[in-house]
Amino acid sequence: MTHADTAVSDCIARLEALREHAPLVHCLTNEVVTGFTANVLLSLGASPAMVDTPGEAGAFAGIADGVLLNLGTIAPLKAEGMLEAADAASAAGIPWVLDPVAIGVLPIRTALAATLRARRPGVIRGNPSEILALAGAGVGGRGTDSIATPDDAADAARALARECAGIVAVSGPVDLITDGERVVRISSGHPLLTRITGGGCALGAVIAAFVGRAPAEERLDAVVAAATVYTVAAEMAAEIAPRPGSFLPAFVDALDAVGAEELRARTVIA
Amino acid sequence: MTHADTAVSDCIARLEALREHAPLVHCLTNEVVTGFTANVLLSLGASPAMVDTPGEAGAFAGIADGVLLNLGTIAPLKAEGMLEAADAASAAGIPWVLDPVAIGVLPIRTALAATLRARRPGVIRGNPSEILALAGAGVGGRGTDSIATPDDAADAARALARECAGIVAVSGPVDLITDGERVVRISSGHPLLTRITGGGCALGAVIAAFVGRAPAEERLDAVVAAATVYTVAAEMAAEIAPRPGSFLPAFVDALDAVGAEELRARTVIA
Amino acid sequence: MTHADTAVSDCIARLEALREHAPLVHCLTNEVVTGFTANVLLSLGASPAMVDTPGEAGAFAGIADGVLLNLGTIAPLKAEGMLEAADAASAAGIPWVLDPVAIGVLPIRTALAATLRARRPGVIRGNPSEILALAGAGVGGRGTDSIATPDDAADAARALARECAGIVAVSGPVDLITDGERVVRISSGHPLLTRITGGGCALGAVIAAFVGRAPAEERLDAVVAAATVYTVAAEMAAEIAPRPGSFLPAFVDALDAVGAEELRARTVIA
Repeated sequence: MTHADTAVSDCIARLEALREHAPLVHCLTNEVVTGFTANVLLSLGASPAMVDTPGEAGAFAGIADGVLLNLGTIAPLKAEGMLEAADAASAAGIPWVLDPVAIGVLPIRTALAATLRARRPGVIRGNPSEILALAGAGVGGRGTDSIATPDDAADAARALARECAGIVAVSGPVDLITDGERVVRISSGHPLLTRITGGGCALGAVIAAFVGRAPAEERLDAVVAAATVYTVAAEMAAEIAPRPGSFLPAFVDALDAVGAEELRARTVIA
Repeated sequence: MTHADTAVSDCIARLEALREHAPLVHCLTNEVVTGFTANVLLSLGASPAMVDTPGEAGAFAGIADGVLLNLGTIAPLKAEGMLEAADAASAAGIPWVLDPVAIGVLPIRTALAATLRARRPGVIRGNPSEILALAGAGVGGRGTDSIATPDDAADAARALARECAGIVAVSGPVDLITDGERVVRISSGHPLLTRITGGGCALGAVIAAFVGRAPAEERLDAVVAAATVYTVAAEMAAEIAPRPGSFLPAFVDALDAVGAEELRARTVIA
Repeated sequence: MTHADTAVSDCIARLEALREHAPLVHCLTNEVVTGFTANVLLSLGASPAMVDTPGEAGAFAGIADGVLLNLGTIAPLKAEGMLEAADAASAAGIPWVLDPVAIGVLPIRTALAATLRARRPGVIRGNPSEILALAGAGVGGRGTDSIATPDDAADAARALARECAGIVAVSGPVDLITDGERVVRISSGHPLLTRITGGGCALGAVIAAFVGRAPAEERLDAVVAAATVYTVAAEMAAEIAPRPGSFLPAFVDALDAVGAEELRARTVIA
């Protein structure tokens, strides 16, 4: 078996394990994408929860199987809930996922992201501008738009991953995923993921579902599996539905339908 | 006519009356399912409103035709709005619906649910774990998951219904609905309702639409009609769309399409 | 060329320009329709952002290409973010769009709308009851329902437009759009837009995308183009999907598909 064959087999095994265990994924995510994110997780085979009130956000993070913090909308109480959830997840040994949406230009989320970065997320997922901004190597994009490419952010991603002892995933036409040493590139996917809202945000939740409580040495493979399953499902959906409105339900369907056969046929990992 | 025939005829009459009057249903519901809930109500023939700010939530509850309080997300101001809406609805004679999402483990919503229970909701809808927790007979599930079955919660449901002089609806593969004396079981429905987010939450809104300002002696029949129409529509949708993503729009379509013929063919009430 | 031909050619040119420039549209909108609104903008060819926290809402409004303030849900911090965004947009020369959802009966939003009106929005979009209430000529409807027709609100719309030196768009079976002098009526569209949630709210966002930073003399044409493209897309979708659930993705698809041919065939401007 080649290295790529091994990677695909690992993806398939991780997807099957996820569906068997139905991990409870606790998402403190932005209010634009809550419903879509929950449906993505449900169709994949995970169980979503979105408990963001301080006093409950931490309690729930401790009993979840995976935790996502997405900074898209950050009312003060929600930000407080996020800090609580990060601490509770860390205490419970859960490598929580940080998605630093639109940091750089916007002051409050940029400060919040820096605070969360210092608490060492297990995984960071963002577009190239966000990763550059979080690493202190750029000023961010405009909202969820990114002008930079994943390879522009490769050095920043490696540095961030080493600093947090975690994984950094940079989304783009080719996704770049690194643990600070190894760099994996995933070429599957489809531009329609950028024509719907939450295409990046829901990937953060799927990463949290795949990573769960995985030990450090398995996390890179878990993030690679998440991004692979997600982007292969997007390809499947785009063949059925070439416009954004119908792509949405088709993509959610594809997350239910995707399996070993599709992953073997479509995965492009380098 | 058998008892079941009478029940189906009553469902049909209530659905037709709902579509004629287009009740204004005021929902203070969780932020994950707001859009889906509103679309469910609109397609069914009701008119949704979601005014959750204190100072307005009560004012609107007083002029609505039905009120739902769903505890899925409970920021402090929203919780305050819920108490205001409950009081205004009670003052206006509206038997408001309580959906105690994920109570048991989570401290703030568990206390809020107890406060609301003491104000005597007209209908309580939940999964078995939630009903057990609200009745003080269990510790709840994990989020929206329930390990218990509706029949496990039958005694708790009857006790709650008697205490509130209201109706309790327990969702599951077979829905169980009781006024504390009679127990009605509805076997229509489809597991896909558990593979989308809001499958239970939106039923709460549909119950509020069917119950509206109904007098006490009609409420059990109104809740039975709501659950019957909802689950029959789910069956119709699942035949067209067997995966979660496309099931969503198909289900909303089915709530528009469902009528006397489908209800006569598919209703299973015992 | 007739006047109507000129209007259609102008719509087409504005749609093509929008797709070329992909304006960043900053929406402070209600939590029921955030996802749908973002997907409408993305499919049309614009780029949505929804940053509502005070301290960020203004910063983002200043760098956006268009700004929408929709009063559907108005928690106190969000209302504060709206005032900040209105001021920043005005300072940056952006004619921001106000959608005074459900004002009249509800006290807090009615006061907020009056405050925002005094800051002179570039465009006001609402149903007839909302426009009458904002102009001080009516008490509003029940939620998003309107009993009045656009022509009932024609005088109020003209008066409001003159007062703000802006454009007022009144939605209904025939949309009425005025700058206080000219009155344009658009007859394209479909009743299914009233059977989904956000049908009016998302039009506000599309208006913000078309108006952007347009100078005063172009704004009426920009709003007419927005309403024309939106309602023509609704007609296209309704032919494919005659029920609300499937109309939703079909409508989002149609916003991607609509072009010169469809606009020439279907536009009815008077």
